[in-house]
Amino acid sequence: MQVPSLSISRRTRKTPFSRRVQEAGVKAYTVYNHMLLPTVFESVEEDYKHLKSKVQIWDVSCERQVELWGPDAGRLAQMLTPRDLSDMALNRCYYTPMVDETGGMLNDPVTTKLAEDKYWVSVADSDLLFWIKGLAHAFRLEVDVDEPDVSPFAIQGPQAEDLVARVFGERIRSIRFFHYDYVEFEGQRMVLARSGYSKQGGFELYVDGSKWGEPVWDAFMEAGADMDVRAGCPNLIERIEGQLLSYGNDMTRNNTPHECGLGKFCQTQQAIGCVGRDALLRVAVEGPVRQIRSVAIDGDPVPPCNELWPIIGGGRQVGTISSAAYSPDFRTNVAIGMVRMTHWDDGTKVQVDTPHGMRSATVWETPFCNQGGPE
Amino acid sequence: MQVPSLSISRRTRKTPFSRRVQEAGVKAYTVYNHMLLPTVFESVEEDYKHLKSKVQIWDVSCERQVELWGPDAGRLAQMLTPRDLSDMALNRCYYTPMVDETGGMLNDPVTTKLAEDKYWVSVADSDLLFWIKGLAHAFRLEVDVDEPDVSPFAIQGPQAEDLVARVFGERIRSIRFFHYDYVEFEGQRMVLARSGYSKQGGFELYVDGSKWGEPVWDAFMEAGADMDVRAGCPNLIERIEGQLLSYGNDMTRNNTPHECGLGKFCQTQQAIGCVGRDALLRVAVEGPVRQIRSVAIDGDPVPPCNELWPIIGGGRQVGTISSAAYSPDFRTNVAIGMVRMTHWDDGTKVQVDTPHGMRSATVWETPFCNQGGPE
Ligand SMILES: Nc1nc2c(c(=O)[nH]1)N[C@@H](CNc1ccc(C(=O)N[C@@H](CCC(=O)O)C(=O)O)cc1)CN2
Ligand SMILES: Nc1nc2c(c(=O)[nH]1)N[C@@H](CNc1ccc(C(=O)N[C@@H](CCC(=O)O)C(=O)O)cc1)CN2
Repeated sequence: MQVPSLSISRRTRKTPFSRRVQEAGVKAYTVYNHMLLPTVFESVEEDYKHLKSKVQIWDVSCERQVELWGPDAGRLAQMLTPRDLSDMALNRCYYTPMVDETGGMLNDPVTTKLAEDKYWVSVADSDLLFWIKGLAHAFRLEVDVDEPDVSPFAIQGPQAEDLVARVFGERIRSIRFFHYDYVEFEGQRMVLARSGYSKQGGFELYVDGSKWGEPVWDAFMEAGADMDVRAGCPNLIERIEGQLLSYGNDMTRNNTPHECGLGKFCQTQQAIGCVGRDALLRVAVEGPVRQIRSVAIDGDPVPPCNELWPIIGGGRQVGTISSAAYSPDFRTNVAIGMVRMTHWDDGTKVQVDTPHGMRSATVWETPFCNQGGPE
Repeated sequence: MQVPSLSISRRTRKTPFSRRVQEAGVKAYTVYNHMLLPTVFESVEEDYKHLKSKVQIWDVSCERQVELWGPDAGRLAQMLTPRDLSDMALNRCYYTPMVDETGGMLNDPVTTKLAEDKYWVSVADSDLLFWIKGLAHAFRLEVDVDEPDVSPFAIQGPQAEDLVARVFGERIRSIRFFHYDYVEFEGQRMVLARSGYSKQGGFELYVDGSKWGEPVWDAFMEAGADMDVRAGCPNLIERIEGQLLSYGNDMTRNNTPHECGLGKFCQTQQAIGCVGRDALLRVAVEGPVRQIRSVAIDGDPVPPCNELWPIIGGGRQVGTISSAAYSPDFRTNVAIGMVRMTHWDDGTKVQVDTPHGMRSATVWETPFCNQGGPE
């Protein structure tokens, strides 16, 4: 299949960084939250090598914020997620599975607590705003729910901390994983968190006001010129190696957080008020019957995974692959799939029905990036 | 700017017709409701000429259905829209503005009433499902809200009726605009409505079950071989000529239905139960201060409109252009914009600040397609 073009309209929104992204030679996009998300600069493989050795700046504006603001903001936030938010501190961001009344995943955002009455929910690709607004309205909560003009900008890679320290000072080195602090950019206060959609380490700056997009981009490019800083983007290979899930790809409304391996982010018993609590209490205790796994698929590089590929074990279907790519470092195809408990143990041999034919494969509980191995 | 590629993943869902669409030589897509929507086959201009003279089949699966099913389905449907649904008959589909509690547009779907306790809401590009589920849950309604495996397939163009009659028999000629009837395809009952996102006339078949996608496609291609039937898609030029609005492009949550020129689809006084009713009652009486208009932009073809272009009148901004394309038939750039009441009268001269410089332009109340004129 020939690679198709993307038709861009106002509906596929540009970002505060779009001009810089184009100048940097972006080759492909996806659409995420009705917004452009770059997917390739040099090539997925070149981008990957650079991300794992240097530092990149990413336009992840498409990770839109849903702001909850008002006396009922905290109550509403807890309604959304089985993660216990009761002790959340004012310098924290949490990875938060969000579920409906059946326990089905609606999104897997990063939630930042800015004040007792103010939260930002940094959403993956679904209009979670609509669900939140529906609940807030029908439950008559005293809270304002809206999308502010805030655009995340990620600095990722092994040299990310050094680059961010050049721009915002040494103090940022003491920000811990999934904590945040405030920084000033040309007098504008912004949230800087140690987080990001890679396992290479780094930060996310919540750029507060579109007008700061290009100045922020330019400041990082200048500060990192001698570090070979480049425009990058979430990298398909790297995120699969790290088992970072993608909503809509690796999970949908049909999955519970526990199936997604996100049970560690749920304290369902404690999450009083969560609308999915009743539905999840049982699965929280008994565990799911299928779960997310890393899968190594043997043989030549597989084509892009744009629909579920069956996983076969003992002659019948025991799961589905939802993301796959060839990993230069692991010298195999790395993949993410949902596997039934009969075949989810570490090292289980299975087969995957790819568009390039049936392939032998191995199921792994640990993400590739924590396996050591050929890297 | 070089035309970028689109990276396709499971998240950008394929449709039951995707294989046929690719075989037909699709050149570009957009992403709509997390699904692929073709935008170009030959070229936007060639597709346009063919649509206005012949008949096309369109993969509009991305117009996903939200099914409301249960004793409270009707009550819930009326909560969503200021259109009065109380007298809706069982052979009707309605174009229905959907609003939040502030009267802001959340979507502009076509709603089909299948039974007293069953509706399909055929949504534009926003996850209206999330809003509906939020309301249904928090108001404790007895209704099931889900996305069924139903994919609209449009037959559009001046010869659409003839082609559909060949496939489903002469009886379909008596289906009136925005009415539906049932047809059988190889034993499977499906909804066939006289509707579609063009002003060329035609039908939409709600293909019930993905497995029917390719058989339906093939049946229409075969039946219309001697009519030069082609794969097509909603056409940018034609829809602007017809002032068919696109959610996310021409309107957002910031707009009321009345601003969008959709006041004729609102009976706010009668729409008891609509959550936006209070907010809209005043604007329903007094009217909006800005409204959707067709705009003719002089000069050479303008570039694609992928952000709002300011409309200038009397030296200050009086509106924004949200969609624009060069029309071969009207031999001018046709556009859709939101214009303040000081400048919205028929024939008002304004200027538009396009990426190709300032252009003189004229505001029209009537869609181009009803203006006669050079066509
Ligand atoms: N702003 C921000 N917003 C986001 C994303 C992000 O990337 N950053 N990404 C999307 C949400 N999904 C994820 C998925 C994984 C992680 C993530 O980082 N997970 C770590 C650890 C999380 C933890 O320990 O708390 C992991 O190893 O699984 C963050 C957001 C969309 N919104
Ligand atoms: N299934 C179906 N679903 C859809 C669309 C469609 O196209 N058909 N299109 C999108 C929704 N938006 C529109 C916009 C305009 C019309 C439309 O057709 N309007 C006619 C008349 C409507 C009427 O008189 O009732 C007009 O001239 O304005 C239909 C859906 C998404 N969902």
